[in-house]
Amino acid sequence: MVEVCLSPELIHLYEVKSKIVVVIDILRASSTIVTALESGVVAVRTEADLTACKALETQQYEAAAERNGEPIEGFRWTNSPLQYYQNPESNGIKLALSTTNGTRCVQLSQAADTILIGSFLNLQATAEWLNRQEKDIFLFCAGWKGKVSLEDSLFAGALLCQLSAKPNPQCDASTMVAQLWNLHRDNVTEFLAESAHYKRLNNKGLAEDIQFCFRQNLFTENIVILHEKDFVKQAI
Amino acid sequence: MVEVCLSPELIHLYEVKSKIVVVIDILRASSTIVTALESGVVAVRTEADLTACKALETQQYEAAAERNGEPIEGFRWTNSPLQYYQNPESNGIKLALSTTNGTRCVQLSQAADTILIGSFLNLQATAEWLNRQEKDIFLFCAGWKGKVSLEDSLFAGALLCQLSAKPNPQCDASTMVAQLWNLHRDNVTEFLAESAHYKRLNNKGLAEDIQFCFRQNLFTENIVILHEKDFVKQAI
Repeated sequence: MVEVCLSPELIHLYEVKSKIVVVIDILRASSTIVTALESGVVAVRTEADLTACKALETQQYEAAAERNGEPIEGFRWTNSPLQYYQNPESNGIKLALSTTNGTRCVQLSQAADTILIGSFLNLQATAEWLNRQEKDIFLFCAGWKGKVSLEDSLFAGALLCQLSAKPNPQCDASTMVAQLWNLHRDNVTEFLAESAHYKRLNNKGLAEDIQFCFRQNLFTENIVILHEKDFVKQAI
Repeated sequence: MVEVCLSPELIHLYEVKSKIVVVIDILRASSTIVTALESGVVAVRTEADLTACKALETQQYEAAAERNGEPIEGFRWTNSPLQYYQNPESNGIKLALSTTNGTRCVQLSQAADTILIGSFLNLQATAEWLNRQEKDIFLFCAGWKGKVSLEDSLFAGALLCQLSAKPNPQCDASTMVAQLWNLHRDNVTEFLAESAHYKRLNNKGLAEDIQFCFRQNLFTENIVILHEKDFVKQAI
Protein backbone atom coordinates (compact mmCIF):
# COMPACT_ATOMS: atom_id res chain seq x y z
CA MET A 1 0.00 0.00 0.00
CA VAL A 2 1.01 3.58 -0.55
CA GLU A 3 0.47 6.60 1.68
CA VAL A 4 1.22 10.27 1.10
CA CYS A 5 2.24 12.74 3.81
CA LEU A 6 2.04 16.35 2.62
CA SER A 7 4.26 17.95 5.27
CA PRO A 8 6.85 17.05 7.92
CA GLU A 9 4.47 18.66 10.43
CA LEU A 10 2.05 15.77 9.86
CA ILE A 11 4.54 12.91 10.15
CA HIS A 12 3.58 12.05 13.74
CA LEU A 13 0.19 10.93 12.42
CA TYR A 14 1.81 8.17 10.36
CA GLU A 15 3.92 5.09 10.94
CA VAL A 16 7.00 4.79 8.72
CA LYS A 17 8.52 1.78 10.47
CA SER A 18 9.28 -1.08 8.04
CA LYS A 19 8.22 1.05 5.07
CA ILE A 20 10.09 2.42 2.09
CA VAL A 21 10.08 6.20 2.43
CA VAL A 22 10.54 8.40 -0.62
CA VAL A 23 11.69 11.88 0.44
CA ILE A 24 10.42 14.56 -1.93
CA ASP A 25 11.87 18.08 -1.99
CA ILE A 26 11.69 19.00 -5.65
CA LEU A 27 12.91 22.63 -5.25
CA ARG A 28 15.66 21.72 -4.81
CA ALA A 29 17.27 19.27 -2.38
CA SER A 30 15.89 16.12 -4.06
CA SER A 31 16.82 17.31 -7.51
CA THR A 32 20.28 18.35 -6.34
CA ILE A 33 21.08 15.07 -4.59
CA VAL A 34 19.94 13.00 -7.57
CA THR A 35 21.85 15.18 -10.05
CA ALA A 36 25.01 15.24 -7.94
CA LEU A 37 25.08 11.44 -7.71
CA GLU A 38 24.40 11.11 -11.44
CA SER A 39 27.24 13.57 -12.12
CA GLY A 40 30.04 11.69 -10.42
CA VAL A 41 29.54 12.56 -6.76
CA VAL A 42 29.96 9.25 -4.92
CA ALA A 43 28.03 9.98 -1.72
CA VAL A 44 25.76 12.68 -0.31
CA ARG A 45 25.33 13.18 3.42
CA THR A 46 22.47 15.47 4.46
CA GLU A 47 22.91 17.66 7.54
CA ALA A 48 20.35 20.09 8.93
CA ASP A 49 22.95 22.16 10.78
CA LEU A 50 25.42 24.35 8.86
CA THR A 51 28.23 23.87 11.39
CA ALA A 52 27.83 20.07 11.40
CA CYS A 53 27.82 20.17 7.61
CA LYS A 54 31.01 22.21 7.45
CA ALA A 55 32.65 19.95 10.07
CA LEU A 56 32.31 17.00 7.70
CA GLU A 57 35.16 18.53 5.68
CA THR A 58 37.46 16.80 8.18
CA GLN A 59 36.05 13.49 6.87
CA GLN A 60 36.79 14.23 3.21
CA TYR A 61 33.37 15.64 2.42
CA GLU A 62 32.99 18.85 0.48
CA ALA A 63 30.45 21.16 2.06
CA ALA A 64 27.36 22.37 0.21
CA ALA A 65 24.73 24.70 1.58
CA GLU A 66 22.18 27.34 0.84
CA ARG A 67 19.61 29.25 2.84
CA ASN A 68 16.56 30.80 1.22
CA GLY A 69 18.05 30.31 -2.22
CA GLU A 70 21.27 32.15 -1.33
CA PRO A 71 24.77 30.59 -1.29
CA ILE A 72 26.62 30.62 2.07
CA GLU A 73 30.09 32.04 2.46
CA GLY A 74 32.69 29.35 3.07
CA PHE A 75 30.66 26.67 1.28
CA ARG A 76 31.98 25.94 -2.16
CA TRP A 77 28.92 24.03 -3.34
CA THR A 78 25.28 25.08 -3.32
CA ASN A 79 21.85 23.54 -3.58
CA SER A 80 21.73 24.06 -7.36
CA PRO A 81 21.57 20.87 -9.45
CA LEU A 82 23.13 22.75 -12.37
CA GLN A 83 26.30 23.33 -10.38
CA TYR A 84 26.88 19.56 -10.43
CA TYR A 85 25.46 18.53 -13.80
CA GLN A 86 28.16 17.80 -16.37
CA ASN A 87 30.71 19.44 -14.09
CA PRO A 88 34.00 17.45 -14.06
CA GLU A 89 34.75 18.84 -10.61
CA SER A 90 31.86 16.80 -9.21
CA ASN A 91 33.66 13.65 -10.10
CA GLY A 92 34.60 11.37 -7.23
CA ILE A 93 33.80 13.80 -4.43
CA LYS A 94 31.69 13.17 -1.34
CA LEU A 95 29.23 15.90 -0.54
CA ALA A 96 27.81 17.13 2.78
CA LEU A 97 24.63 19.04 1.93
CA SER A 98 22.79 21.28 4.34
CA THR A 99 19.23 22.21 3.43
CA THR A 100 16.26 22.90 5.63
CA ASN A 101 13.14 21.14 4.38
CA GLY A 102 14.50 17.99 2.73
CA THR A 103 17.06 17.18 5.39
CA ARG A 104 14.41 17.32 8.07
CA CYS A 105 12.36 14.64 6.27
CA VAL A 106 15.37 12.35 6.17
CA GLN A 107 15.85 12.78 9.93
CA LEU A 108 12.17 12.14 10.58
CA SER A 109 12.27 8.92 8.52
CA GLN A 110 14.94 7.13 10.52
CA ALA A 111 12.57 4.34 11.56
CA ALA A 112 11.93 3.41 7.94
CA ASP A 113 13.21 0.24 6.35
CA THR A 114 14.62 2.14 3.37
CA ILE A 115 14.90 5.81 2.40
CA LEU A 116 14.96 6.94 -1.23
CA ILE A 117 15.18 10.38 -2.79
CA GLY A 118 12.52 11.05 -5.41
CA SER A 119 12.63 13.73 -8.09
CA PHE A 120 11.19 14.32 -11.54
CA LEU A 121 14.71 13.65 -12.83
CA ASN A 122 14.59 10.00 -11.72
CA LEU A 123 10.82 9.49 -11.56
CA GLN A 124 10.49 6.43 -13.75
CA ALA A 125 13.55 4.64 -12.39
CA THR A 126 12.26 5.15 -8.85
CA ALA A 127 8.82 3.84 -9.81
CA GLU A 128 10.27 0.80 -11.58
CA TRP A 129 12.36 -0.15 -8.58
CA LEU A 130 9.51 0.41 -6.14
CA ASN A 131 7.25 -1.78 -8.25
CA ARG A 132 9.55 -4.72 -7.57
CA GLN A 133 9.45 -4.32 -3.78
CA GLU A 134 6.99 -5.94 -1.41
CA LYS A 135 7.00 -3.37 1.38
CA ASP A 136 4.57 -0.53 1.99
CA ILE A 137 5.57 2.75 0.39
CA PHE A 138 5.43 6.16 2.03
CA LEU A 139 5.70 9.32 -0.07
CA PHE A 140 6.98 12.08 2.18
CA CYS A 141 6.71 15.64 0.88
CA ALA A 142 9.08 18.16 2.43
CA GLY A 143 6.95 21.23 1.70
CA TRP A 144 8.17 24.71 2.56
CA LYS A 145 8.79 25.45 6.24
CA GLY A 146 6.09 22.98 7.17
CA LYS A 147 3.47 24.21 4.73
CA VAL A 148 2.17 22.09 1.86
CA SER A 149 3.93 22.79 -1.44
CA LEU A 150 2.56 22.40 -4.93
CA GLU A 151 5.68 20.95 -6.54
CA ASP A 152 6.21 18.25 -3.90
CA SER A 153 2.52 17.34 -3.91
CA LEU A 154 2.46 17.15 -7.70
CA PHE A 155 5.50 14.89 -7.77
CA ALA A 156 3.94 12.62 -5.13
CA GLY A 157 0.97 12.33 -7.49
CA ALA A 158 3.23 11.59 -10.46
CA LEU A 159 5.02 8.81 -8.60
CA LEU A 160 1.83 7.40 -7.11
CA CYS A 161 0.28 7.12 -10.56
CA GLN A 162 3.22 4.99 -11.73
CA LEU A 163 3.07 2.57 -8.80
CA SER A 164 1.40 -0.80 -8.98
CA ALA A 165 0.75 -0.68 -5.20
CA LYS A 166 -2.64 0.77 -4.31
CA PRO A 167 -3.15 3.89 -2.19
CA ASN A 168 -4.24 3.27 1.38
CA PRO A 169 -8.02 3.88 1.28
CA GLN A 170 -7.68 5.83 4.56
CA CYS A 171 -5.35 8.32 2.87
CA ASP A 172 -7.22 11.22 1.27
CA ALA A 173 -3.92 12.97 0.53
CA SER A 174 -3.20 10.19 -2.00
CA THR A 175 -6.40 10.96 -3.86
CA MET A 176 -5.64 14.68 -3.84
CA VAL A 177 -2.14 14.38 -5.28
CA ALA A 178 -3.18 11.80 -7.88
CA GLN A 179 -5.95 14.14 -9.06
CA LEU A 180 -3.50 17.01 -9.23
CA TRP A 181 -1.14 14.96 -11.37
CA ASN A 182 -3.83 13.69 -13.70
CA LEU A 183 -4.97 17.26 -14.23
CA HIS A 184 -1.53 18.72 -14.88
CA ARG A 185 0.61 15.90 -16.26
CA ASP A 186 0.73 17.61 -19.66
CA ASN A 187 1.46 21.12 -18.39
CA VAL A 188 3.76 20.55 -15.42
CA THR A 189 5.92 23.62 -15.93
CA GLU A 190 3.03 26.00 -16.49
CA PHE A 191 1.18 24.62 -13.48
CA LEU A 192 4.17 24.70 -11.17
CA ALA A 193 4.80 28.33 -12.10
CA GLU A 194 1.91 28.93 -9.65
CA SER A 195 3.92 27.43 -6.80
CA ALA A 196 5.00 29.84 -4.07
CA HIS A 197 8.51 28.43 -3.94
CA TYR A 198 8.87 28.61 -7.72
CA LYS A 199 8.10 32.31 -7.49
CA ARG A 200 10.59 32.78 -4.65
CA LEU A 201 13.41 31.11 -6.57
CA ASN A 202 12.46 32.66 -9.88
CA ASN A 203 12.73 36.08 -8.26
CA LYS A 204 16.30 35.20 -7.31
CA GLY A 205 17.21 34.57 -10.95
CA LEU A 206 17.10 30.79 -10.61
CA ALA A 207 14.70 30.14 -13.51
CA GLU A 208 17.11 27.83 -15.33
CA ASP A 209 17.68 25.82 -12.18
CA ILE A 210 13.94 25.38 -11.65
CA GLN A 211 13.35 24.28 -15.23
CA PHE A 212 16.01 21.64 -14.72
CA CYS A 213 14.26 20.35 -11.58
CA PHE A 214 11.08 19.81 -13.62
CA ARG A 215 12.75 17.71 -16.36
CA GLN A 216 11.37 14.20 -16.30
CA ASN A 217 13.50 11.08 -16.50
CA LEU A 218 16.81 12.64 -17.42
CA PHE A 219 18.37 9.85 -15.35
CA THR A 220 16.84 6.44 -15.96
CA GLU A 221 19.21 3.82 -14.62
CA ASN A 222 19.44 4.33 -10.86
CA ILE A 223 17.58 4.98 -7.70
CA VAL A 224 19.07 7.15 -4.96
CA ILE A 225 19.05 5.28 -1.66
CA LEU A 226 20.33 5.84 1.86
CA HIS A 227 23.15 3.41 2.58
CA GLU A 228 24.32 3.71 6.18
CA LYS A 229 24.62 7.47 6.56
CA ASP A 230 25.05 8.50 2.93
CA PHE A 231 22.81 8.67 -0.09
CA VAL A 232 24.28 6.78 -3.02
CA LYS A 233 23.03 5.73 -6.42
CA GLN A 234 22.12 2.11 -7.04
CA ALA A 235 21.27 0.47 -10.36
CA ILE A 236 17.59 -0.44 -10.59
CA MET B 1 -6.28 37.90 0.99
CA VAL B 2 -7.31 34.32 1.57
CA GLU B 3 -5.31 31.44 3.01
CA VAL B 4 -6.15 27.77 3.37
CA CYS B 5 -4.95 25.52 6.18
CA LEU B 6 -5.54 21.83 5.44
CA SER B 7 -5.25 20.47 8.99
CA PRO B 8 -5.32 21.64 12.63
CA GLU B 9 -1.80 20.13 12.89
CA LEU B 10 -0.54 22.90 10.61
CA ILE B 11 -2.21 25.84 12.35
CA HIS B 12 0.95 26.94 14.21
CA LEU B 13 2.44 27.86 10.83
CA TYR B 14 -0.22 30.52 10.29
CA GLU B 15 -1.42 33.69 11.95
CA VAL B 16 -5.18 33.93 12.46
CA LYS B 17 -5.17 37.09 14.57
CA SER B 18 -7.46 39.79 13.13
CA LYS B 19 -8.70 37.43 10.41
CA ILE B 20 -12.08 35.93 9.66
CA VAL B 21 -11.73 32.17 10.16
CA VAL B 22 -14.13 29.78 8.45
CA VAL B 23 -14.12 26.42 10.24
CA ILE B 24 -14.78 23.54 7.84
CA ASP B 25 -15.76 20.08 9.04
CA ILE B 26 -18.15 18.92 6.35
CA LEU B 27 -18.67 15.38 7.74
CA ARG B 28 -20.38 16.38 9.89
CA ALA B 29 -19.91 19.03 12.59
CA SER B 30 -20.14 22.02 10.20
CA SER B 31 -23.19 20.62 8.46
CA THR B 32 -24.85 19.77 11.77
CA ILE B 33 -24.30 23.19 13.35
CA VAL B 34 -25.60 25.01 10.27
CA THR B 35 -28.63 22.72 9.96
CA ALA B 36 -29.46 22.91 13.68
CA LEU B 37 -29.43 26.72 13.63
CA GLU B 38 -31.54 26.76 10.45
CA SER B 39 -34.01 24.36 12.09
CA GLY B 40 -34.91 26.42 15.12
CA VAL B 41 -31.97 25.80 17.47
CA VAL B 42 -31.10 29.22 18.87
CA ALA B 43 -27.46 28.66 19.88
CA VAL B 44 -24.78 25.98 19.50
CA ARG B 45 -21.87 25.74 21.93
CA THR B 46 -19.03 23.42 20.85
CA GLU B 47 -17.16 21.48 23.52
CA ALA B 48 -14.29 19.05 22.93
CA ASP B 49 -14.84 17.20 26.19
CA LEU B 50 -17.89 14.95 26.66
CA THR B 51 -18.18 15.70 30.40
CA ALA B 52 -17.99 19.47 29.86
CA CYS B 53 -20.61 19.12 27.14
CA LYS B 54 -22.97 17.17 29.38
CA ALA B 55 -22.38 19.65 32.24
CA LEU B 56 -23.86 22.43 30.10
CA GLU B 57 -27.28 20.85 30.71
CA THR B 58 -27.25 22.81 33.97
CA GLN B 59 -27.23 25.98 31.85
CA GLN B 60 -30.28 25.02 29.78
CA TYR B 61 -28.32 23.48 26.93
CA GLU B 62 -29.32 20.11 25.49
CA ALA B 63 -26.31 17.85 25.04
CA ALA B 64 -25.33 16.41 21.64
CA ALA B 65 -22.41 14.10 20.98
CA GLU B 66 -21.03 11.34 18.87
CA ARG B 67 -17.75 9.50 18.69
CA ASN B 68 -16.62 7.74 15.51
CA GLY B 69 -20.08 8.04 14.02
CA GLU B 70 -21.76 6.37 17.02
CA PRO B 71 -24.29 8.03 19.36
CA ILE B 72 -23.32 8.29 23.05
CA GLU B 73 -25.53 6.99 25.85
CA GLY B 74 -27.04 9.81 27.87
CA PHE B 75 -26.88 12.32 25.00
CA ARG B 76 -30.24 12.84 23.40
CA TRP B 77 -28.89 14.58 20.31
CA THR B 78 -26.20 13.43 17.87
CA ASN B 79 -23.93 14.84 15.20
CA SER B 80 -26.44 14.07 12.44
CA PRO B 81 -27.88 17.09 10.61
CA LEU B 82 -30.96 15.06 9.71
CA GLN B 83 -31.86 14.73 13.37
CA TYR B 84 -32.42 18.49 13.46
CA TYR B 85 -33.74 19.24 9.99
CA GLN B 86 -37.50 19.87 9.96
CA ASN B 87 -37.73 18.48 13.48
CA PRO B 88 -40.12 20.57 15.62
CA GLU B 89 -38.24 19.44 18.72
CA SER B 90 -35.23 21.49 17.59
CA ASN B 91 -37.26 24.61 18.00
CA GLY B 92 -36.01 27.10 20.56
CA ILE B 93 -33.41 24.85 22.19
CA LYS B 94 -29.77 25.63 22.91
CA LEU B 95 -27.37 22.86 21.96
CA ALA B 96 -24.01 21.83 23.44
CA LEU B 97 -22.25 19.76 20.78
CA SER B 98 -19.19 17.65 21.39
CA THR B 99 -17.22 16.56 18.33
CA THR B 100 -13.54 15.95 17.91
CA ASN B 101 -12.19 17.52 14.73
CA GLY B 102 -14.40 20.58 14.26
CA THR B 103 -14.42 21.65 17.90
CA ARG B 104 -10.64 21.61 17.98
CA CYS B 105 -10.50 24.08 15.07
CA VAL B 106 -12.81 26.45 16.94
CA GLN B 107 -10.54 26.30 20.00
CA LEU B 108 -7.45 26.88 17.87
CA SER B 109 -9.03 29.94 16.24
CA GLN B 110 -9.64 31.94 19.42
CA ALA B 111 -7.26 34.73 18.32
CA ALA B 112 -9.34 35.38 15.20
CA ASP B 113 -11.44 38.49 14.74
CA THR B 114 -14.48 36.43 13.70
CA ILE B 115 -15.24 32.70 13.45
CA LEU B 116 -17.76 31.33 10.96
CA ILE B 117 -18.92 27.81 10.23
CA GLY B 118 -18.78 26.87 6.56
CA SER B 119 -20.65 24.03 4.89
CA PHE B 120 -22.00 23.18 1.46
CA LEU B 121 -25.44 23.84 2.91
CA ASN B 122 -24.70 27.56 3.38
CA LEU B 123 -21.87 27.98 0.85
CA GLN B 124 -23.24 30.86 -1.16
CA ALA B 125 -24.54 32.84 1.81
CA THR B 126 -21.15 32.52 3.49
CA ALA B 127 -19.35 33.66 0.34
CA GLU B 128 -21.72 36.61 -0.15
CA TRP B 129 -21.18 37.83 3.40
CA LEU B 130 -17.40 37.35 3.21
CA ASN B 131 -17.31 39.33 -0.02
CA ARG B 132 -18.58 42.38 1.86
CA GLN B 133 -15.87 42.23 4.54
CA GLU B 134 -12.48 43.95 4.43
CA LYS B 135 -10.48 41.56 6.62
CA ASP B 136 -8.24 38.70 5.58
CA ILE B 137 -9.98 35.34 5.34
CA PHE B 138 -8.66 32.05 6.66
CA LEU B 139 -10.23 28.76 5.55
CA PHE B 140 -9.52 26.21 8.24
CA CYS B 141 -10.12 22.55 7.36
CA ALA B 142 -10.69 20.23 10.29
CA GLY B 143 -9.58 17.06 8.50
CA TRP B 144 -9.75 13.69 10.21
CA LYS B 145 -7.66 13.21 13.33
CA GLY B 146 -5.11 15.66 11.98
CA LYS B 147 -4.90 14.20 8.49
CA VAL B 148 -5.99 16.06 5.39
CA SER B 149 -9.52 15.19 4.27
CA LEU B 150 -10.97 15.30 0.80
CA GLU B 151 -14.37 16.73 1.69
CA ASP B 152 -13.01 19.62 3.77
CA SER B 153 -10.38 20.42 1.14
CA LEU B 154 -12.96 20.35 -1.64
CA PHE B 155 -15.26 22.68 0.26
CA ALA B 156 -12.37 25.08 0.93
CA GLY B 157 -11.86 25.13 -2.85
CA ALA B 158 -15.56 25.72 -3.46
CA LEU B 159 -15.65 28.68 -1.08
CA LEU B 160 -12.35 30.10 -2.31
CA CYS B 161 -13.64 30.09 -5.90
CA GLN B 162 -16.62 32.22 -4.85
CA LEU B 163 -14.56 34.82 -3.01
CA SER B 164 -13.56 38.13 -4.53
CA ALA B 165 -10.48 38.26 -2.26
CA LYS B 166 -7.38 36.77 -3.86
CA PRO B 167 -5.46 33.78 -2.47
CA ASN B 168 -2.21 34.63 -0.69
CA PRO B 169 0.47 33.89 -3.33
CA GLN B 170 2.54 32.18 -0.59
CA CYS B 171 -0.24 29.65 -0.03
CA ASP B 172 0.08 26.59 -2.27
CA ALA B 173 -2.77 24.90 -0.41
CA SER B 174 -5.09 27.52 -1.91
CA THR B 175 -4.07 26.52 -5.41
CA MET B 176 -4.52 22.84 -4.62
CA VAL B 177 -8.04 23.14 -3.25
CA ALA B 178 -9.14 25.51 -6.02
CA GLN B 179 -7.92 23.02 -8.64
CA LEU B 180 -9.72 20.22 -6.87
CA TRP B 181 -12.96 22.18 -6.90
CA ASN B 182 -12.67 23.21 -10.52
CA LEU B 183 -12.12 19.58 -11.44
CA HIS B 184 -15.03 18.18 -9.44
CA ARG B 185 -17.60 20.96 -9.13
CA ASP B 186 -19.98 19.02 -11.37
CA ASN B 187 -19.55 15.64 -9.69
CA VAL B 188 -19.15 16.48 -6.02
CA THR B 189 -20.99 13.45 -4.68
CA GLU B 190 -19.23 10.93 -6.92
CA PHE B 191 -15.85 12.45 -6.13
CA LEU B 192 -16.41 12.62 -2.40
CA ALA B 193 -17.40 8.96 -2.38
CA GLU B 194 -13.61 8.43 -2.57
CA SER B 195 -13.11 10.20 0.76
CA ALA B 196 -11.94 8.01 3.62
CA HIS B 197 -14.42 9.52 6.05
CA TYR B 198 -17.30 9.10 3.59
CA LYS B 199 -16.50 5.39 3.50
CA ARG B 200 -16.31 5.21 7.29
CA LEU B 201 -19.71 6.83 7.75
CA ASN B 202 -21.29 5.03 4.82
CA ASN B 203 -20.29 1.73 6.41
CA LYS B 204 -22.23 2.80 9.50
CA GLY B 205 -25.43 3.20 7.47
CA LEU B 206 -25.20 7.00 7.37
CA ALA B 207 -25.48 7.37 3.58
CA GLU B 208 -28.54 9.61 3.78
CA ASP B 209 -26.81 11.85 6.29
CA ILE B 210 -23.75 12.21 4.07
CA GLN B 211 -25.82 13.05 1.00
CA PHE B 212 -27.48 15.79 3.01
CA CYS B 213 -24.08 17.25 3.96
CA PHE B 214 -23.20 17.55 0.26
CA ARG B 215 -26.35 19.49 -0.70
CA GLN B 216 -25.41 22.96 -1.84
CA ASN B 217 -27.19 26.14 -0.72
CA LEU B 218 -30.16 24.60 1.00
CA PHE B 219 -29.92 27.59 3.38
CA THR B 220 -29.34 30.88 1.65
CA GLU B 221 -30.20 33.65 4.07
CA ASN B 222 -27.74 33.42 6.95
CA ILE B 223 -24.19 32.92 8.00
CA VAL B 224 -23.30 30.99 11.14
CA ILE B 225 -21.06 33.08 13.36
CA LEU B 226 -19.54 32.81 16.84
CA HIS B 227 -21.15 35.36 19.13
CA GLU B 228 -19.49 35.34 22.55
CA LYS B 229 -19.34 31.60 23.28
CA ASP B 230 -22.13 30.36 21.03
CA PHE B 231 -22.62 29.92 17.34
CA VAL B 232 -25.74 31.66 16.12
CA LYS B 233 -27.22 32.44 12.74
CA GLN B 234 -27.09 35.98 11.41
CA ALA B 235 -28.81 37.36 8.32
CA ILE B 236 -26.34 38.14 5.53
